[in-house]
Amino acid sequence: MLNIAVFCSGKGTNLQAIIKTIHEKDIEAKVSLIISDKEKAYCLERAKHAKIRAIFVNPKNFPSKQKFENRIIGYLKEENIGLIVLAGFMRMLSPFFVQNYSNKILNIHPSLLPAFKGSANAVADALDYGMKITGTTVHFVDEKLDNGPIVLQRAVEIAENDNEDSLRQKIQQQEHILYPLAIQLFVEGRLKIEGRRVEINPENYNPQD
Amino acid sequence: MLNIAVFCSGKGTNLQAIIKTIHEKDIEAKVSLIISDKEKAYCLERAKHAKIRAIFVNPKNFPSKQKFENRIIGYLKEENIGLIVLAGFMRMLSPFFVQNYSNKILNIHPSLLPAFKGSANAVADALDYGMKITGTTVHFVDEKLDNGPIVLQRAVEIAENDNEDSLRQKIQQQEHILYPLAIQLFVEGRLKIEGRRVEINPENYNPQD
Repeated sequence: MLNIAVFCSGKGTNLQAIIKTIHEKDIEAKVSLIISDKEKAYCLERAKHAKIRAIFVNPKNFPSKQKFENRIIGYLKEENIGLIVLAGFMRMLSPFFVQNYSNKILNIHPSLLPAFKGSANAVADALDYGMKITGTTVHFVDEKLDNGPIVLQRAVEIAENDNEDSLRQKIQQQEHILYPLAIQLFVEGRLKIEGRRVEINPENYNPQD
Repeated sequence: MLNIAVFCSGKGTNLQAIIKTIHEKDIEAKVSLIISDKEKAYCLERAKHAKIRAIFVNPKNFPSKQKFENRIIGYLKEENIGLIVLAGFMRMLSPFFVQNYSNKILNIHPSLLPAFKGSANAVADALDYGMKITGTTVHFVDEKLDNGPIVLQRAVEIAENDNEDSLRQKIQQQEHILYPLAIQLFVEGRLKIEGRRVEINPENYNPQD
């Protein structure tokens, strides 16, 4: 049973979809820990309802980013976490942290990366650019922002009458399918990173091979 | 009847698809002129087979880009051209030329722009980046490379075993549908440029409104 930690700063709709899918599809994993850097984040409420350990870690209480992250790493070790899922976590992790959990951190970004890499508002960016198709990307996290190897992408059409809200909703609908699927593939050991490319194996893959 | 000029430097498979679709769908337009900057470009052969006036304009024969382009503009005027379609034309048009045919030049680029903007090998770029979805974009040409307002985009999935050739084929298949469709929308007066966005009107649109 793989223990998963979800990091979030906001509503946590992806968190909800992940919990639901793990349950429904009987995936051999458990969301064991929720970490938030925002005290009022609704994802902490969701965690409580789902009886998952939920911790607000206040960055202001730490003299440095490394000490803040060390505290988080302490919690991750307590729960024997094997996968970290960033779900609307609005804080960049340091190279120190990323190296500690190399190839074990997933993120989702509401564009077809590399489009709008690093943007805090990739949904509006796609509209402002006048794109007809945008989408969403699940990727491994490396030291650079929105840069790691891509696990899955899904396209979303932009309609004539879409505004930022309606487009964000469409993208989130796809995210609620895509993110749990990426997690399932990880849990089943089917993701193999080859340079920048992620191969998805039809059957289980043993990283020791 | 709108007269179309197609500019090409290579095989001209998009040219072929455009001629075919205009004929099959009875679009109120005619490809009246083919311009190539390469003497041996196969698109010139295609033009001859289709009994379309085809001209090789050798850039080396002109002392400046503007004189080269002025010669082309001369041919365009002779044929009363109302739309210029770039189909694998590997030469950037000057702002002088673009302003002469403002909002009357279309280009196609084998990526979901703005991804891989300006790249001469956007198909390989998508593979090298490890994308799972790429695509193709038809856009109006402005003064900057691959930058003008987007008319249509179409997504193409990248399979595990795709290489550059197989992916290029998949993208071209979509281009042969998308480019003629964009031309049809232009011919029917259904494209309205609003800043960076291109609205596609359900019915004919009179630009004088």
